[in-house]
Amino acid sequence: MNRPLKSRGLFGRKYLDLQVREREIAPPDEDHVVVRVRACGVCGTDINFVRDWAEDPQALGHEIAAEVVEAGKNVRGLRAGDRVIVEDCSLCGTCADCKSGHPELCRNLYNLEGQPGLGEYLSVRYNSLVKFEGLDFVSASLTEPLAVSLTAVLNAQVPLGGSVLVLGNGPLGLMAARLARLRGAGWVGITGLAADNAREKARFTVARQFGCDQVIEADREEVGPAVKRHSPAGVDRVIVSSPPESLADALQAIRFGGIITFFGLHFGGRNRVSVDVNDLVFRKISLIPTFAEPAINFPVANRLLRDGLVDAKALVTHTFGWEQAEHTLRGIVDGSLPAVKAVMLPAGAPPA
Amino acid sequence: MNRPLKSRGLFGRKYLDLQVREREIAPPDEDHVVVRVRACGVCGTDINFVRDWAEDPQALGHEIAAEVVEAGKNVRGLRAGDRVIVEDCSLCGTCADCKSGHPELCRNLYNLEGQPGLGEYLSVRYNSLVKFEGLDFVSASLTEPLAVSLTAVLNAQVPLGGSVLVLGNGPLGLMAARLARLRGAGWVGITGLAADNAREKARFTVARQFGCDQVIEADREEVGPAVKRHSPAGVDRVIVSSPPESLADALQAIRFGGIITFFGLHFGGRNRVSVDVNDLVFRKISLIPTFAEPAINFPVANRLLRDGLVDAKALVTHTFGWEQAEHTLRGIVDGSLPAVKAVMLPAGAPPA
Amino acid sequence: MNRPLKSRGLFGRKYLDLQVREREIAPPDEDHVVVRVRACGVCGTDINFVRDWAEDPQALGHEIAAEVVEAGKNVRGLRAGDRVIVEDCSLCGTCADCKSGHPELCRNLYNLEGQPGLGEYLSVRYNSLVKFEGLDFVSASLTEPLAVSLTAVLNAQVPLGGSVLVLGNGPLGLMAARLARLRGAGWVGITGLAADNAREKARFTVARQFGCDQVIEADREEVGPAVKRHSPAGVDRVIVSSPPESLADALQAIRFGGIITFFGLHFGGRNRVSVDVNDLVFRKISLIPTFAEPAINFPVANRLLRDGLVDAKALVTHTFGWEQAEHTLRGIVDGSLPAVKAVMLPAGAPPA
Amino acid sequence: MNRPLKSRGLFGRKYLDLQVREREIAPPDEDHVVVRVRACGVCGTDINFVRDWAEDPQALGHEIAAEVVEAGKNVRGLRAGDRVIVEDCSLCGTCADCKSGHPELCRNLYNLEGQPGLGEYLSVRYNSLVKFEGLDFVSASLTEPLAVSLTAVLNAQVPLGGSVLVLGNGPLGLMAARLARLRGAGWVGITGLAADNAREKARFTVARQFGCDQVIEADREEVGPAVKRHSPAGVDRVIVSSPPESLADALQAIRFGGIITFFGLHFGGRNRVSVDVNDLVFRKISLIPTFAEPAINFPVANRLLRDGLVDAKALVTHTFGWEQAEHTLRGIVDGSLPAVKAVMLPAGAPPA
Repeated sequence: MNRPLKSRGLFGRKYLDLQVREREIAPPDEDHVVVRVRACGVCGTDINFVRDWAEDPQALGHEIAAEVVEAGKNVRGLRAGDRVIVEDCSLCGTCADCKSGHPELCRNLYNLEGQPGLGEYLSVRYNSLVKFEGLDFVSASLTEPLAVSLTAVLNAQVPLGGSVLVLGNGPLGLMAARLARLRGAGWVGITGLAADNAREKARFTVARQFGCDQVIEADREEVGPAVKRHSPAGVDRVIVSSPPESLADALQAIRFGGIITFFGLHFGGRNRVSVDVNDLVFRKISLIPTFAEPAINFPVANRLLRDGLVDAKALVTHTFGWEQAEHTLRGIVDGSLPAVKAVMLPAGAPPA
Repeated sequence: MNRPLKSRGLFGRKYLDLQVREREIAPPDEDHVVVRVRACGVCGTDINFVRDWAEDPQALGHEIAAEVVEAGKNVRGLRAGDRVIVEDCSLCGTCADCKSGHPELCRNLYNLEGQPGLGEYLSVRYNSLVKFEGLDFVSASLTEPLAVSLTAVLNAQVPLGGSVLVLGNGPLGLMAARLARLRGAGWVGITGLAADNAREKARFTVARQFGCDQVIEADREEVGPAVKRHSPAGVDRVIVSSPPESLADALQAIRFGGIITFFGLHFGGRNRVSVDVNDLVFRKISLIPTFAEPAINFPVANRLLRDGLVDAKALVTHTFGWEQAEHTLRGIVDGSLPAVKAVMLPAGAPPA
Repeated sequence: MNRPLKSRGLFGRKYLDLQVREREIAPPDEDHVVVRVRACGVCGTDINFVRDWAEDPQALGHEIAAEVVEAGKNVRGLRAGDRVIVEDCSLCGTCADCKSGHPELCRNLYNLEGQPGLGEYLSVRYNSLVKFEGLDFVSASLTEPLAVSLTAVLNAQVPLGGSVLVLGNGPLGLMAARLARLRGAGWVGITGLAADNAREKARFTVARQFGCDQVIEADREEVGPAVKRHSPAGVDRVIVSSPPESLADALQAIRFGGIITFFGLHFGGRNRVSVDVNDLVFRKISLIPTFAEPAINFPVANRLLRDGLVDAKALVTHTFGWEQAEHTLRGIVDGSLPAVKAVMLPAGAPPA
Repeated sequence: MNRPLKSRGLFGRKYLDLQVREREIAPPDEDHVVVRVRACGVCGTDINFVRDWAEDPQALGHEIAAEVVEAGKNVRGLRAGDRVIVEDCSLCGTCADCKSGHPELCRNLYNLEGQPGLGEYLSVRYNSLVKFEGLDFVSASLTEPLAVSLTAVLNAQVPLGGSVLVLGNGPLGLMAARLARLRGAGWVGITGLAADNAREKARFTVARQFGCDQVIEADREEVGPAVKRHSPAGVDRVIVSSPPESLADALQAIRFGGIITFFGLHFGGRNRVSVDVNDLVFRKISLIPTFAEPAINFPVANRLLRDGLVDAKALVTHTFGWEQAEHTLRGIVDGSLPAVKAVMLPAGAPPA
């Protein structure tokens, strides 16, 4: 890079007010790397922003697979052409928690500094990059959400042969179901909305492909009783990818001594739930949250995709470019697009 | 035993309606053991029963140190004169959970079948007894509550050198504070009511003896800010021995990534609390309950008392016999007795 | 049972000196249960006894699936006709370790008191029985070895997507390989002898069925280099079901920070190995043994068989009755029988 | 820094061949920091180098407390005058292991690049520094060895109230004993040589100060039997800070199901030991090594020193400057100096 690159990027706010902004990306500082985005997934958070959450335009996209354009002079082990995942929120490796064996507690984070992953180029600090090989960019863009699901499944401490219920059949829920099965669960159930439209049908189809034993249309039947047909004493673990209010279903479905892990959020005010502390105590129910920050387990998640242990192709139902961006996001918001996971290709069709 | 023993026992209901009932204890069945109670502590639950919870008379007392009178013919390893702790709720050792390395999940429990620990004799199944040596009966009667506190401290996974806040300075809270210190906490704080009467003063005195760095009068100052004077980012762990509503204080005091363990209950309707799920997720706060059933860790707790690692003498402020029973319980209920832990001696002063 | 039952049982010593002895089984004591053996697997230990280890006749057989004939009067939850696994070495549920959450450390064990599982009837204490349903007896007789393999896989703490090498392709090794895969290993390798005879071929065939990615003929190629073709830095975990001397292969194959778990024994003097302590330290290699006593995880193992997560049918290549017992054991010892797992049916063909 | 600094540093090889070399320290690169060493402890490894291990001169000293002179332009959070510990072998924070929650497995390490800690100035990458406050430099120089001992104690998973034997009463062993006590061990024993000279007496004196219940002169009595006078079934945990051959004592002293962790090395050929695999299996003895690389737990160790939970003053028996360096090292090698821990002050007496 002899001079700055022009880089288009996508920003958005409610209600589907999308903007393409152009920035200049300077040649990288000593410890920075300029990358070209090859594939970037659309996350539920992006959708929530442009549906009704965000008053002001937000940078969109953080599920990023990219190619190195140029690395700063102090950067070790990366050069032009390398394939990388870009973490959107990286641990520092130097704080008291990182240096004491607890990187998951790092609060000294590096982020994308307002750059949208749904864009052409990014300049990021070297420690936000995870190099990978042997995997196409579109599949690789699932690394971030898969890592979050993976952290949830690890937090859940799935017992070998045990039963796991996943609440919510969006991409994160579907991946959690697949990973629970991969971890040795003997029974996996998943909930979703009534499968009376193309999108919900698509999600439950993936659920079946991913090994779910039971799919539950949560607006058609009560989750607790539905689950107890198979597991009369309740399930061993519940993973909640749906909004906070579904914690009630989790508590109904869980067995004595079970663990509930949850990562579904709500920004419209429905983030508080009432819990019966006596019930938690008498039934020894642990509530262990899962949170995407800092990025963790990206190398493991990427390897699971590369080794085919999680089938990315089953999840990515749509890819799109600049011209289809607005149409695609609108279709996801209004439900007209039967998408499980949509991935943007900001640089056109990437190499395999 | 050639014939049944007469055994007096204490029952009670609201409002301080106490009864002494006499039962006959038959010679033990093949797998039962008849024991003579030498010391039995009064638990907060007993006090709640006779204050305002129980409509019907309840058997009182389950913190029991006793002496074997006679063991059934199939009982191994116990004979007349042996000192034993009587568990009030014992794991079976044979269910799927017990046989899979998870006795703490046992639901196939053995209990005292309505016999009061505040009584003279008990007939119990052999597996409810924990033999001990080298410890006096009064101290040994603390084994049960200490085991509950111990389980809470283990559930809390106290980091070496870390900070621990205990909510509530009753005997369970005080023992949790002592055990947190013993486990290597670098800072231990404890909350209680304003120390403006003899009982509250006595409790905070024990707190200081047990190594608490800070005592907080929770009705005089806000717990969160008080704790953050020492730990600006919040404490590593909170152990809640006080009622459910104090979970709010725990959430205020805890740091990012912390663990809250809780065992305080409420039977008067204030058992539900509202929690902000977003906050739990964003701050990675785990809620892990501690529950006394089944009995677990009694042998460890007993050994801690025997080895002087927890000073029973500091906690047992009062002992009493049949004649002082009503007076003592009344004094605890109305607060006129400056008791930390009161222990009944149903057979008179026990041997050392 | 109004009177004692006659029960034939198989005993053996070197060199293939087998005896059928008849005993009388009295009606059960209060806490005992008389069972009729329906299926009992032949274990490597049995084979070692009758090959060259045992000077004196040993009771043979401890992989037992049976049917309850009569339960003693104090036995809860079992009645005539119930299907049960008989543990050969049961935890007590009452010692200090069992009562402190560590049943795996129990030393106060109940065993079969010299009764052979390769026999007609047994009288055992109630706590040695694990009730099961929905599984045929022959498959159920694999519960014991599967539980040992399962404990090894749990001790190994297999990382999701990681690599696992199993040394030895006997039934325990094969089951360990299957369970490592079930636990989420991304790559599983297994070693055995050269596949130039029917038995070795049969074992490697099962290995492939059970999902092994690589089979290594350990007498034809060095294990370390063979494994490193796939995993250049070494494998994450090694499970050693072969004799102690193969620990050298494990140490060659393992990666920095890996865990080796081992349960292979030797009674002919080759039980000592030389290890380089500097190497263990510099490479952070943990050695964690797995041992079958006390019985643990039988309920989980049984459920895995019942749910088809481990395919018993693939392993049981031979069943036999009283008449074929000597022929079968001889064939296993001299290698003429291409057996993976042989199971005796002492009461004739059992119900499904 | 407008120009390079002259910096003297200490190098050494066998047999007590010491050299002071002078280097130039350039102003720091973007991500480097120049520090002035205020205190640096002498480690057993340094002593072994100059006694008889090292053929060629080695840079001496890696237990370093220093003061920031100047930080490179990209370094966050450090400025001139800040107190820092310098790690000698730092995790990268960016490799697959670091980014997957396992920094202890990092192999992409940053080291001191041949600079001696027993010297005046160092230039190190920013990520090798751990800032601290509220602790004097001499005490702070114990952070490195304390962190190694701490990792050993954490690896040992000390049970609350359990028994711990430490083999070796050098500084690392003494600190391990203190930390085992701090972690809640109910009994701590330690071994050393016969206390018939000033140095050994000094070590056992610190052992008593640090709360050891029993000190064992390992050349005067057998360790196993000595320990079993207190713990007839053996101790729960053994921490081996002495050379590999003492693993035999550890195996004699340990109980069924115990854990042995070890970090003592030998470079003179006595690094191999013979172990009985049958015995490890039958007694469920786990061998878990502890290794100082990468640096981990420095922030925790530093905090334990700052909070007085480990008394640095009890350990540091000698401090010395450039003039006394040779005399001091010679005295440690030949045993004439009754040192527990000797700390060099390369810049003269440091501020408190």
